[in-house]
Amino acid sequence: MSFDILQEKIREKKNPTVAGLDPRIEYVPAHIQKKSFEQYGETLAGAADAVWEFNKGLIDALCDIVPAVKPQSAYYENMGWQGMAVMEKTIRYAREKGLYVIADIKRGDIGSTATAYAEGWLGVTKVGGTECPVFDADCVTLNGYMGSDAIKPFLEECVARNKSAFVLAKTSNPSSVELQDMVAGDRVVYTVMGDLIERWGKDTAGKYGYQALGAVVGATHPSVLKELRRRLERTFFLVPGYGAQGGTAADVRYAFDELGRGAIINASRSIMCAWKKTGQDGLDYQEAARNAAIQMREELKEYITIL
Amino acid sequence: MSFDILQEKIREKKNPTVAGLDPRIEYVPAHIQKKSFEQYGETLAGAADAVWEFNKGLIDALCDIVPAVKPQSAYYENMGWQGMAVMEKTIRYAREKGLYVIADIKRGDIGSTATAYAEGWLGVTKVGGTECPVFDADCVTLNGYMGSDAIKPFLEECVARNKSAFVLAKTSNPSSVELQDMVAGDRVVYTVMGDLIERWGKDTAGKYGYQALGAVVGATHPSVLKELRRRLERTFFLVPGYGAQGGTAADVRYAFDELGRGAIINASRSIMCAWKKTGQDGLDYQEAARNAAIQMREELKEYITIL
Repeated sequence: MSFDILQEKIREKKNPTVAGLDPRIEYVPAHIQKKSFEQYGETLAGAADAVWEFNKGLIDALCDIVPAVKPQSAYYENMGWQGMAVMEKTIRYAREKGLYVIADIKRGDIGSTATAYAEGWLGVTKVGGTECPVFDADCVTLNGYMGSDAIKPFLEECVARNKSAFVLAKTSNPSSVELQDMVAGDRVVYTVMGDLIERWGKDTAGKYGYQALGAVVGATHPSVLKELRRRLERTFFLVPGYGAQGGTAADVRYAFDELGRGAIINASRSIMCAWKKTGQDGLDYQEAARNAAIQMREELKEYITIL
Repeated sequence: MSFDILQEKIREKKNPTVAGLDPRIEYVPAHIQKKSFEQYGETLAGAADAVWEFNKGLIDALCDIVPAVKPQSAYYENMGWQGMAVMEKTIRYAREKGLYVIADIKRGDIGSTATAYAEGWLGVTKVGGTECPVFDADCVTLNGYMGSDAIKPFLEECVARNKSAFVLAKTSNPSSVELQDMVAGDRVVYTVMGDLIERWGKDTAGKYGYQALGAVVGATHPSVLKELRRRLERTFFLVPGYGAQGGTAADVRYAFDELGRGAIINASRSIMCAWKKTGQDGLDYQEAARNAAIQMREELKEYITIL
């Protein structure tokens, strides 16, 4: 199962961190922007070129420190098809460098639509008699509001191709309470969703005991992390909200099992934009990102020992 | 407000139907596929070219019958960046033909990520000092599981640019019961979501009384349509599930107010794939699609009079 692969990469690097690749154009250092704009103008093609250069540099700088990267689709879609071409190239490049790639797409749709999404992001699209890989990530994020119909086509690809998916349970943002914390009988919406995730994923556990369907649980709710970790023994967690949003290493330790397994913590801006704090105009963006990733690894090590 | 524009287009055509553009490659007639594959091979580029030809033909055939089209992002993403280029061209072409375009993306994410999505699909992306339109649809579909943080950036674009969005409330698929029908006190999840949608959209009502945030409510639940129509007086409905999924004209009449306004009914395969039933190998796909759309308009007319 695919979470075995991720768990092993985490163990190799002794680091349960995934670096978000969420490149707004203003996160790209000026010298990279300048070069791309000189060639393509201030256009979507220019922005896409700059982001691609930035991503390559980040992946080169991080690939021996972090086990995984998580490109967020929104930051590519907002550059149109040129951006999506960069998303494709970024996923391919990161996998070539040995990184586990989580495509953060939060898709959720039904029937043949869910099948099309699953083909595009994890599987292959059949064109006539030819099977064409498309984005071909290791893992995606999903939204389960529509129920199992939206998840099953992805789960089938996970099982067939040794891939995985995280479904939103309790998110890190302030307004997550509006729906996710609704009380229904003796449960709340996020535990119902957690239970569904564990039920949908049954019979797909790998050697570390985790099923192919994981859950997104925000770092900003340590008590929820603790509760869901106890409740969902076979569910791997993707934990956003570390750093800028307020989650600390002390908070996220509850996402892990007693062997320090079963979770990965996301950091995006604190790594990508680390160069903004060094006063060198981004010329040192690779070194700054690398140092930030090492610092986060060391922070987590204070609380989490991965066996 | 943007739903005024949609309502006026519905009135002009006397037809509250949106035609889904969900083109799996096998929905494209063989003669179109053949031509594209001869030029590009059985590749994603070949598939994308075939889909683009098919879409143009459908839009030409339908643009005086239906007020709106709804391209579903999944069927473009599964052809990678080439597919996304077709999504961009399809939206532009349909708008040029006077159609209202709903990009069916069901996105839902937070903070700067939601902003990036909103820029890409409704607004503009700033590149240096230049504002670049990207997909530039009239309307999108959204998923509100993460709460208002995921909706607000879109709502801001709606207000600033006279656009609109539909948020999932009660979907048409069988497994929608798993989460959406959970009972919480005296409400169920889909009414909570409906109430949130109406609250988030407040102060954005146009001259027909509908706010810039609408709701998706499936045709397969007529009693829910009736209940939510009464409950959410200012919320425009997008109703999927007509035809293949079992919803009838008699069912969907409950989506409309007493003036026959406030809703639009989706049909995808019954129009796109109408050629599969005429025995002419798809050479007549335009005529078949047009006839299917006219037939649906006439079915709806039995129950709904638009004033």
